Amino acid sequence: MARGRFITLEGGEGAGKSTLAAGLEETLGQRSISVERTREPGGTPGAEEIRKLLVEGAGDRWTATSEALLFFAARHDHVERRIKPALDAGRWVICDRFFDSTTAYQGAAGGLDRETLTQLRRLTLGDFTPDLTLILDLDPEAGLVRAGSRGGGEQRFEGKGLTFHQRLRQGFLDIARAEPERCVVLDAAQPPDGVLASALAGIEQRLGWPR
Amino acid sequence: MARGRFITLEGGEGAGKSTLAAGLEETLGQRSISVERTREPGGTPGAEEIRKLLVEGAGDRWTATSEALLFFAARHDHVERRIKPALDAGRWVICDRFFDSTTAYQGAAGGLDRETLTQLRRLTLGDFTPDLTLILDLDPEAGLVRAGSRGGGEQRFEGKGLTFHQRLRQGFLDIARAEPERCVVLDAAQPPDGVLASALAGIEQRLGWPR
Ligand SMILES: Nc1ncnc2c1ncn2[C@@H]1O[C@H](COP(=O)(O)OP(=O)(O)O)[C@@H](O)[C@H]1O
Ligand SMILES: Nc1ncnc2c1ncn2[C@@H]1O[C@H](COP(=O)(O)OP(=O)(O)O)[C@@H](O)[C@H]1O
Ligand SMILES: [Mg+2]
Ligand SMILES: [Mg+2]
Repeated sequence: MARGRFITLEGGEGAGKSTLAAGLEETLGQRSISVERTREPGGTPGAEEIRKLLVEGAGDRWTATSEALLFFAARHDHVERRIKPALDAGRWVICDRFFDSTTAYQGAAGGLDRETLTQLRRLTLGDFTPDLTLILDLDPEAGLVRAGSRGGGEQRFEGKGLTFHQRLRQGFLDIARAEPERCVVLDAAQPPDGVLASALAGIEQRLGWPR
Repeated sequence: MARGRFITLEGGEGAGKSTLAAGLEETLGQRSISVERTREPGGTPGAEEIRKLLVEGAGDRWTATSEALLFFAARHDHVERRIKPALDAGRWVICDRFFDSTTAYQGAAGGLDRETLTQLRRLTLGDFTPDLTLILDLDPEAGLVRAGSRGGGEQRFEGKGLTFHQRLRQGFLDIARAEPERCVVLDAAQPPDGVLASALAGIEQRLGWPR
């Protein structure tokens, strides 16, 4: 049995990651691909407990270093206990946010130095990396309007101000430029159907479909 | 104003760290030393929330790597927001457990490789290190009997079995041997007065008293 493919969805608040994840799960299911849909921070019982510490409360609740350590603590649990077992079982994993979000939020926008993040990633994950990363690019003002209409208590990052979100967008674009073989940038200002079609085209081109 | 001194207390379950911390706080207070007494994991509001994830629940609740990352996430908050400010204000900090506990529990007894722990420590704390570490050495069987009589719900590590606790004891002794200028080993089988007297002698010899 072939190992599954690991696809991550990245981008700012309200870019449409969760919407695309649902669309991909449905479309891949129609192609008889067994899909494990998950998200970060979270994805396992332990990681979901850490998630609560990260997405609720005041913006300055954690130092930038503590925040990055918490993300990687959750991520290690998620990768070892859910993502790798699913891939080994031949399932495709669609993950709503992964380590590029840490690079963009805590690094590019949050000011934590890149070297610390690179080392944390290596310590925690070794060379484990997504097969494909879809970066949903959107003007942050539009994204925050979309996200605001969603509601809920998980607004710690949404509340960080427009400059933060502009640095975030640039952070994701920088990642795509630095790793073009792994990343595809999608125009997230399209309607949901258009974003899904672009994502499927990217998957077909980069990974191909199983036969 | 002189910077305060940072003293950590280390050792296995029931070795008498918390008892000694209380005794030191009282005795140093009598010498007009302003003392900040704290403990790990915890010591700040954020770190105490992480503590709950660490000391409660099943022994295999976390992967060894996640566990170490959680400890260092809590530790960064504690060091930056409480310990360093207290030392800068001239206070002596007495801390019940610090990074040697992570080395001994997650490394020597838990099997996480030493290099990962060393790098995590450097990433998180740079070269920040205790001025003096008092290691309370005790036969783990005696310690677990003492700790058992204490009760409470924080028994995730106490439940890990005698072999774990024997490796733990050896782990602390190995640290003391590797860093003799920082560490003093105390015979924790003495009655509490004797342990306190040995600790005070160690402080006087290594750090001296302020005048
Ligand atoms: N392409 C799109 N165009 C317009 N609205 C969208 C689009 N994608 C998602 N939305 C809406 O925007 C909001 C945020 O989308 P969501 O998928 O939750 O974004 P994210 O997970 O990236 O934060 C939701 O109300 C969703 O219905
Ligand atoms: N030197 C000692 N001799 C005998 N009992 C002790 C001694 N020090 C502490 N105890 C008792 O042993 C138990 C555990 O002590 P504690 O200070 O909480 O240990 P630790 O903090 O190292 O786990 C407590 O009931 C305490 O009163
Ligand atoms: Mg979402
Ligand atoms: Mg104690």
